[in-house]
Amino acid sequence: MDFFFYPDSVAVFGSFKKGAIAYEILRNIVEGGFEGKIIPVNPKGGVLKIEGRKFEILRKLDEPVDVAIIAIPAKFVPALIDEIGPLIKGAVVISAGFSEVGNRELERELVEKARKHGVRVIGPNCAGIFGVHGRFFGSFEVRVKSGGLALISQSGAFGGAALAMGNEEGIGFSAFVSYGNAADLTESDFLEYFADEENTKAIALYIEGVKDGRRFLKALRYASVKKPVIILKAGKSASGAKAAASHTGSLAGSYEIYRAAFKQAGAIEVEEMEELFDAAKAFEMYPKAGRRVAVITNSGGPGVLATDKLERLGLEMARLGDETVEELRSFLPPQCSVKNPIDLIADADYERYKKTIEVICRDENVDSLLVICVPPIFLPGEEIARAVIDAKCDKPLIVNFMAGELVRDGVKLLEGSGIKNFPTPERAAKALKWLSSRGAYC
Amino acid sequence: MDFFFYPDSVAVFGSFKKGAIAYEILRNIVEGGFEGKIIPVNPKGGVLKIEGRKFEILRKLDEPVDVAIIAIPAKFVPALIDEIGPLIKGAVVISAGFSEVGNRELERELVEKARKHGVRVIGPNCAGIFGVHGRFFGSFEVRVKSGGLALISQSGAFGGAALAMGNEEGIGFSAFVSYGNAADLTESDFLEYFADEENTKAIALYIEGVKDGRRFLKALRYASVKKPVIILKAGKSASGAKAAASHTGSLAGSYEIYRAAFKQAGAIEVEEMEELFDAAKAFEMYPKAGRRVAVITNSGGPGVLATDKLERLGLEMARLGDETVEELRSFLPPQCSVKNPIDLIADADYERYKKTIEVICRDENVDSLLVICVPPIFLPGEEIARAVIDAKCDKPLIVNFMAGELVRDGVKLLEGSGIKNFPTPERAAKALKWLSSRGAYC
Repeated sequence: MDFFFYPDSVAVFGSFKKGAIAYEILRNIVEGGFEGKIIPVNPKGGVLKIEGRKFEILRKLDEPVDVAIIAIPAKFVPALIDEIGPLIKGAVVISAGFSEVGNRELERELVEKARKHGVRVIGPNCAGIFGVHGRFFGSFEVRVKSGGLALISQSGAFGGAALAMGNEEGIGFSAFVSYGNAADLTESDFLEYFADEENTKAIALYIEGVKDGRRFLKALRYASVKKPVIILKAGKSASGAKAAASHTGSLAGSYEIYRAAFKQAGAIEVEEMEELFDAAKAFEMYPKAGRRVAVITNSGGPGVLATDKLERLGLEMARLGDETVEELRSFLPPQCSVKNPIDLIADADYERYKKTIEVICRDENVDSLLVICVPPIFLPGEEIARAVIDAKCDKPLIVNFMAGELVRDGVKLLEGSGIKNFPTPERAAKALKWLSSRGAYC
Repeated sequence: MDFFFYPDSVAVFGSFKKGAIAYEILRNIVEGGFEGKIIPVNPKGGVLKIEGRKFEILRKLDEPVDVAIIAIPAKFVPALIDEIGPLIKGAVVISAGFSEVGNRELERELVEKARKHGVRVIGPNCAGIFGVHGRFFGSFEVRVKSGGLALISQSGAFGGAALAMGNEEGIGFSAFVSYGNAADLTESDFLEYFADEENTKAIALYIEGVKDGRRFLKALRYASVKKPVIILKAGKSASGAKAAASHTGSLAGSYEIYRAAFKQAGAIEVEEMEELFDAAKAFEMYPKAGRRVAVITNSGGPGVLATDKLERLGLEMARLGDETVEELRSFLPPQCSVKNPIDLIADADYERYKKTIEVICRDENVDSLLVICVPPIFLPGEEIARAVIDAKCDKPLIVNFMAGELVRDGVKLLEGSGIKNFPTPERAAKALKWLSSRGAYC
């Protein structure tokens, strides 16, 4: 499937009036810096200017391309696929109006024409795809930063919102697929592909339902062995399942069966949209982590909240070794607590944080670190951020800097060094829980 | 206690070098626009310029003031209280170094001197207080917007972080108290005060432990009858309780007892820091809400997620009346779903949202509304925001606009009209759950 996510050439079919879907996709591809060939196609022809580049709109596709992105009225799609089939490897069908509104026959026809030419299809009724490392933004959704997360979404709107929110959370993406009605390629195909795709560190999946349960379980197991797969399942409740049926036409099925399947496959199920991001952030940084956590903080309250959450999630507060305690005592002020959670108190500066992180990190009783900072007025958050960045530590380290505007610069500094911030102690604790579900880091 | 939160005059004791605690507090008071008398006091005297205003630093307080804010070394505090006792009504003691580090005798002495003069004390070992509607920012913490939430925090750092994060979440505050060691005034006193304080619509409480359980239960019950009281209890787990003991010196006690007490009193316990904000946001808008929710969305996936969460939380998806369904059918495009969740599909514009909200709001089977919007590329989020603002609806309406940067302007518009946004469908659903725990809105 590399031709979808790392194409050399793409043709876009549809209207190229400003604001039209095909135009917006073309604009995204151009502005995103795609270096391959870009061909807009519309029977009316014409020319088009985007970012100072001039594109001739072809009346007909007349040369081979890797991917065709199609945003024309549904009823014309099968014929187009039949026409361009010999020239393309894959088609991304954005157009809606197929099985999701009852037009099953039209969808069947689409697939038939594609199969006839050996063309693989994503969609129809989808929001498109991103191959971020190929700088290919083949969707009208907001472009994202390059990174390790592949997002597979049955719902286009969910996917679009998740991309935009991922940008705000500092997530980097390897790819995005909105697969809509899954007439040909399904979630299972994408799971298998991203399991072996080298730029993808973690896979996030939003599903309402799957058509082939056995196939899905197999693909999920395959992918989960290789990489963390984070799943948000919608349509869990009775009303939710009914709503899902009218949304993607998918039978959400019994949630209990899904849940068992996720567990059996070793996938990580999350409960909420926000958790999908948090888990993704954690896995973009580390593949896994052990269960014995040391909490380092400069403020008691948040340290207690983190401790509560960690224990509640079934993680362990690491028991520090005697040498560790002794070493901490040797340089920490007497008011500091050297028991876990380690409280460096409010005036903790660069040196105190850095040294403590390094000492704790060397303790073999500690698998991972949760570093909390509520910057006091007399100490800029950036200083502590720098301590976290500079500290030599080869164990998973999750950071919770908090206090809104007061930590903004510190958080930016951290993110610049690939350290993602979790905005509350509890969300940081959950990140460690997900990491630990993949086993110890060593 | 009005003299603490609506003082006419304040004296600040401590060092007025830039960056020093007393200086930062004084600066906050001046910059916050306090209109009463402001008197800095330090035995060394001198003058001070803040915001173009010149302050003479008195060597000794020589006139009556409502509040003294004290940030001098701990050992000098009892004597100072004894000296100025006849001139002040209340003292906020920022200084640390009392019972939290084992100096119980010094704390006892402080209280004794205060009682001798009938002076009430907040602290010691605290971050200070805000009386936001009195424009009195008697703390070094970041200033906040005026609104309905009174935040009472045992932990200063938690309080400070919460204020800064509250600013980002669009929360308005009536007051803030960090009460530290609670040598004199305790959480119970503040609960009782804010229960009757007219600018306070909801109370948020962070506690690790209380000294007098019976008194606390009584105060909590008193406050909860009058207003929503949201509680975040830290020190719930075994390790967390131990950490709390070394932090605020409070015996966290059995969490089960606390939990039962919260429930019995009718308070709203939240599990996480983020939930404290979300509940506060909801209660700043509405005192309560019924349990039958209608979900209006322009994107299926998020609508399903909201539905799942609502049902999981024990709320009901409202069954729309026949007339409502008929009326919706009369103006909605046929692809829209008129069952709850009501799916207006991606091209829903101002009119479609506004009319739907109004029709749904009139249905007597609906207690509250959850309005979701994932703006499509061809429609600015502001347009839908305006529809929500303009729609005539007298029932609780919770909003979830999502997609990061794409909804930023829409969210600003909503906030400008007092409508706070919840960033995910699940967080919006939880907001309705908390509202419903206070009973139906009518």
